[in-house]
Amino acid sequence: MSETIGIGMLGYAFMGRAHSNAYKSLAYMTWPPPLEPQLVSIAGRDEAAVAEAAERFGFADHTTDWRALVADERIGLFDNSGPNGLHAEPTIEAAKAGKHVICEKPLGRDATEAYEIWQQVAAAGVTHMCAFNYRFVPAVRLAREIVESGELGEIHHFRASYLQDWGAAESDAWRFDRSIAGSGALGDLGAHVIDLARYLVGEIRAVSGQLATFWPERSVDDAFEAAITFDTGAVGTLEASRFATGRKNALRWEINGARGSLAFDMERLNELEVYLADSTPATGAQGFRRVLLTEAEHPFMANWWPPGHIIGWEHTFVHELHHLLAAIRDGVSVGPHGADFEDGYRAAEVCDAVVASAQSGERVTVSYR
Amino acid sequence: MSETIGIGMLGYAFMGRAHSNAYKSLAYMTWPPPLEPQLVSIAGRDEAAVAEAAERFGFADHTTDWRALVADERIGLFDNSGPNGLHAEPTIEAAKAGKHVICEKPLGRDATEAYEIWQQVAAAGVTHMCAFNYRFVPAVRLAREIVESGELGEIHHFRASYLQDWGAAESDAWRFDRSIAGSGALGDLGAHVIDLARYLVGEIRAVSGQLATFWPERSVDDAFEAAITFDTGAVGTLEASRFATGRKNALRWEINGARGSLAFDMERLNELEVYLADSTPATGAQGFRRVLLTEAEHPFMANWWPPGHIIGWEHTFVHELHHLLAAIRDGVSVGPHGADFEDGYRAAEVCDAVVASAQSGERVTVSYR
Amino acid sequence: MSETIGIGMLGYAFMGRAHSNAYKSLAYMTWPPPLEPQLVSIAGRDEAAVAEAAERFGFADHTTDWRALVADERIGLFDNSGPNGLHAEPTIEAAKAGKHVICEKPLGRDATEAYEIWQQVAAAGVTHMCAFNYRFVPAVRLAREIVESGELGEIHHFRASYLQDWGAAESDAWRFDRSIAGSGALGDLGAHVIDLARYLVGEIRAVSGQLATFWPERSVDDAFEAAITFDTGAVGTLEASRFATGRKNALRWEINGARGSLAFDMERLNELEVYLADSTPATGAQGFRRVLLTEAEHPFMANWWPPGHIIGWEHTFVHELHHLLAAIRDGVSVGPHGADFEDGYRAAEVCDAVVASAQSGERVTVSYR
Amino acid sequence: MSETIGIGMLGYAFMGRAHSNAYKSLAYMTWPPPLEPQLVSIAGRDEAAVAEAAERFGFADHTTDWRALVADERIGLFDNSGPNGLHAEPTIEAAKAGKHVICEKPLGRDATEAYEIWQQVAAAGVTHMCAFNYRFVPAVRLAREIVESGELGEIHHFRASYLQDWGAAESDAWRFDRSIAGSGALGDLGAHVIDLARYLVGEIRAVSGQLATFWPERSVDDAFEAAITFDTGAVGTLEASRFATGRKNALRWEINGARGSLAFDMERLNELEVYLADSTPATGAQGFRRVLLTEAEHPFMANWWPPGHIIGWEHTFVHELHHLLAAIRDGVSVGPHGADFEDGYRAAEVCDAVVASAQSGERVTVSYR
Repeated sequence: MSETIGIGMLGYAFMGRAHSNAYKSLAYMTWPPPLEPQLVSIAGRDEAAVAEAAERFGFADHTTDWRALVADERIGLFDNSGPNGLHAEPTIEAAKAGKHVICEKPLGRDATEAYEIWQQVAAAGVTHMCAFNYRFVPAVRLAREIVESGELGEIHHFRASYLQDWGAAESDAWRFDRSIAGSGALGDLGAHVIDLARYLVGEIRAVSGQLATFWPERSVDDAFEAAITFDTGAVGTLEASRFATGRKNALRWEINGARGSLAFDMERLNELEVYLADSTPATGAQGFRRVLLTEAEHPFMANWWPPGHIIGWEHTFVHELHHLLAAIRDGVSVGPHGADFEDGYRAAEVCDAVVASAQSGERVTVSYR
Repeated sequence: MSETIGIGMLGYAFMGRAHSNAYKSLAYMTWPPPLEPQLVSIAGRDEAAVAEAAERFGFADHTTDWRALVADERIGLFDNSGPNGLHAEPTIEAAKAGKHVICEKPLGRDATEAYEIWQQVAAAGVTHMCAFNYRFVPAVRLAREIVESGELGEIHHFRASYLQDWGAAESDAWRFDRSIAGSGALGDLGAHVIDLARYLVGEIRAVSGQLATFWPERSVDDAFEAAITFDTGAVGTLEASRFATGRKNALRWEINGARGSLAFDMERLNELEVYLADSTPATGAQGFRRVLLTEAEHPFMANWWPPGHIIGWEHTFVHELHHLLAAIRDGVSVGPHGADFEDGYRAAEVCDAVVASAQSGERVTVSYR
Repeated sequence: MSETIGIGMLGYAFMGRAHSNAYKSLAYMTWPPPLEPQLVSIAGRDEAAVAEAAERFGFADHTTDWRALVADERIGLFDNSGPNGLHAEPTIEAAKAGKHVICEKPLGRDATEAYEIWQQVAAAGVTHMCAFNYRFVPAVRLAREIVESGELGEIHHFRASYLQDWGAAESDAWRFDRSIAGSGALGDLGAHVIDLARYLVGEIRAVSGQLATFWPERSVDDAFEAAITFDTGAVGTLEASRFATGRKNALRWEINGARGSLAFDMERLNELEVYLADSTPATGAQGFRRVLLTEAEHPFMANWWPPGHIIGWEHTFVHELHHLLAAIRDGVSVGPHGADFEDGYRAAEVCDAVVASAQSGERVTVSYR
Repeated sequence: MSETIGIGMLGYAFMGRAHSNAYKSLAYMTWPPPLEPQLVSIAGRDEAAVAEAAERFGFADHTTDWRALVADERIGLFDNSGPNGLHAEPTIEAAKAGKHVICEKPLGRDATEAYEIWQQVAAAGVTHMCAFNYRFVPAVRLAREIVESGELGEIHHFRASYLQDWGAAESDAWRFDRSIAGSGALGDLGAHVIDLARYLVGEIRAVSGQLATFWPERSVDDAFEAAITFDTGAVGTLEASRFATGRKNALRWEINGARGSLAFDMERLNELEVYLADSTPATGAQGFRRVLLTEAEHPFMANWWPPGHIIGWEHTFVHELHHLLAAIRDGVSVGPHGADFEDGYRAAEVCDAVVASAQSGERVTVSYR
């Protein structure tokens, strides 16, 4: 049987619910799981709400003081699913208390904060993960494997956009408040796009970017666009928006290599489109293949359902947390397939470069500390 | 807080795992759930395997004797996820012992057996459900609502096929054995198609059908096709196959009405294509809409994730069991949206009519006892 | 330079216009064309209308008497694009006068008439073609080549439907009149589906069919459905309807073989979906390929436009007439890729078998004279 | 009957063939055509090739000296389908000789040349058109009408890319030679994207761009990317590449407005995806509509084929030349739906701004002379 690990969670909203669900579903993915998660305690601001969350999600205890989690000796993994403004201090304190940590993205509200979190947590010697969960979409992992296999040849292009359309809504107010969120679409959606660019193609060298705020009273951006170059010489465009009417969760990217291409849309996350120039039948029946990522041989899928039985968005967290628990068990980093805090920091540097470019009008070379 | 109900499960394979997962995920869908399921005991033939399943799925006990479940007073709901040949006796005995019952499809191996199960269980006065889980796909429920709303006008056509491609595999041997399975693609996949035809359009009046077995040594069909008429005058085709290479779980159907049409493919179960002739913009921009069923206003979705965050195949069981628990709590039938044992029986009559038509070469009018 | 051939055309409506256009576009497809068509004369009932058609389409002369075409010595090819009720006599007379003939589908209003046309024209020794133009869609030809190559293995399934939605319109009245049209959706749309079944899979052995007329005052069918078996053992379903709201020209078919599958939709006629089980990359990136049929290596496409520049529906006639002119020049039959009058007759026998099965309720074995 | 107009054409390759074909197909689109084109003479460098082209395309004469076309009094419309380096002088000379002119895009090899062409031709007082034929795709025209109708609300985003994959080929060498072509993907493909941005959204205010050349020995760009802002405040990305493996003619664009969105892909040029937030049915069946642009009410389609019978890429030229002939007949400009030489010049200014931004690394405000 697996050893157990106590989970302490900060935040019970969208991400808290998604992470909790994943801890409970782990056993359905692999058996035995690398470590058996025990939901020890959950923290949140509102006493009544966090109490209900504890009962609903199956946590033994709850608290309105995140420092209680940090002090709780039963807890081995601190899961920070709180808003951006609560990423730094609790995460650092938990690590200093010897707990492994996972923190939602963006890691910090800017690169400076993200760097600080990374440095302090790394110094504490614990395992750390930045929750770029889209690395754990089967199609994204397969894409990485295909790129690494060399089947696509040299990569020339990467274009990605993350489009949603709730920007005119009034809900989730903290996401529109710069002091809490740090940025708008850039840090919320753009960080995902940037992380995938780095994961699938490599480091971003330079960005020519711009920000747009369609509702003038807002202190954060509603959208960003950038033309980018990679260290490898590949070029591309990045974009994110909360004002793309009709696009609900359209994280789309495409990679063009000298001998093949890949294309993806999160609204159809079980699919990957794959073009392989070297695989042309005698009859000339060449084209993009619609790969339905539900075969046992596909990443993460061996332990789910039979072919054709698709998984949902929430399963990315099951894969992610499974990966984290295995890393903790084995005492290794979550990289290269998991994003660690260095990845969280590097994504923040690119975000900051977009902001700098937007302000100066100049192409900005991304530099790391 | 909700009252609890004890669950006793027969079967720990594919369906047992899917149902167990759903019981544990219920709280993520609605809170509080109608009844709080307690996983009391799971039964299966193999002692070691069922013991592991109990631990993995979270059942308190396990047994190799399904009669122990029937006798277990802690159990209020008997969940029969076992193979077709074990549907009749355990289900009937559980009902006679006063337990509510859910049984996987097909209810019986033929209409006679299905009728017997229905009659005996109904006489016991318990709540009964036949696990036609595809009624609980959000797109299917929305389709039913659209049909009922009259927006499509008179229905003229229904065409459906359920295509998979593992028929040449050696696994799941019991599914190829007539004495256990009753039939092949017809009862396994065709029953789903028939149930959806009934759910979405109405009773099937007559079938002109045929069966095909591509591997001669098999005692069950590998595929069936039928031309059908409905009581309403609508006409259509039905089909199921385990030999449709490249189609993994392609349950597809299309409805054409006088003023609109709907189309669905289970491989993209979060989507429904909807054509509404009465909704033509001034610019003539008419066409099939790709509806992504992830809005809070869509069936079952209010308590899942934000728009665009898709759900997986397994979620149909969460919706189904939630519906069942609500019916048990309220002391009502699972109809019309849930399939009860009468629906299980009626689907079996249509299956038998297909077999009779295939053998005689004649169009067969479906008659119910 | 090519020799010339004089064209005499009967009919100036939909098909007359499509054929005329194709004769004029031939030079754009191949140069030099096999024979250079000269548009000699066009015949139609309405003097003013046929005079305008002649000018518009570029015919030197016009007439209201098709017998004038038959008697015209300048004419080498008689193109019968008239309504179904005018297929038999003019075509036979033209052949007897030594002219090569092409006749729109369905060849006759029933199998008896089609047989008579075939026999008499064949006896005249001229080249004959039944205008099943969908054989000349690049994707259909490629499908045939893939089937013949054996890449799909043994064929198990063929399912096809031809769906349109203008059945509630008042126009084209002759198509709803049994005495002129012979049948409704069956002969108009179903004949195409049947011809493709024969072209792509082989002879149809038996049909279990039904006809539906949704507007009771009509003397022809609005839709038909059939479950079918082929001589090879393959099985399938066929369907056609003029009442499939939102489907405009949806001729769809799918072939499933033991090692691969093909799928097509005429609304996207430049595309073919191809699944080849033997072509799985190391990474498991298997799936249906969307083949865009615009490469020089694809059937008929060497002389059109660069890759990705799609062709339209009308181009099928260019390919068809090019094929016919080459056959006339070479003194050979249009088969196997073109449909000759025997193919026209055989399709009519299958149509008649559907009607017979619909009336008797029995599976009908197709028998040829 | 229509009056006639004599056509003199420079160039017999890809574009020459496409234009010739369109002149001959005009009568199939509308009858009578606005002016009846007479193919007088075609000019090209290679005597044998141009002689064959004349015969094939139906020109009465041919010449190897374009000045002969300019001097030919039978010619009323000079059609410049030659390579970019032959756009300026012949077009200007033809206009000075009083001939109406249409010139392929890009109008000049840079903005200075384009400006010169525009000014001199405008001064001559003839009708002028820059052959941005994609304005004449039915879906593009419908998009423009929808934008103008206000149904989308304020436009926030425009993203477009024109992707092809023949960049590694050796053919069409002039397109890789800067002295003849002016630029690579930017002027060839990017000019189309820029023109559509202007046609659908409005003037481009500023660009942050970059160019990439993947084959170092080339003197032209293989790809470009840019982040852009419009005068209206809308923002977006533009891109073109000849190195997008598997993308054959993928001119894709998407518009997001406050109340709706549009999306298009030239590889499926008969379709437009349309999302209208104000058109939500009671059942919540909202989503992108796949509009098949084949109805008589759709732009340009009234005179083609019945619904669902798609047109091909080449038909854009039929619509374009029909539009031009009507403008010539009526003595009016081709705008706003046709692109005139001012539009050709303005697109060139944006191209130059991309080059300037790529070189300086700075955001460049587009300024017009």
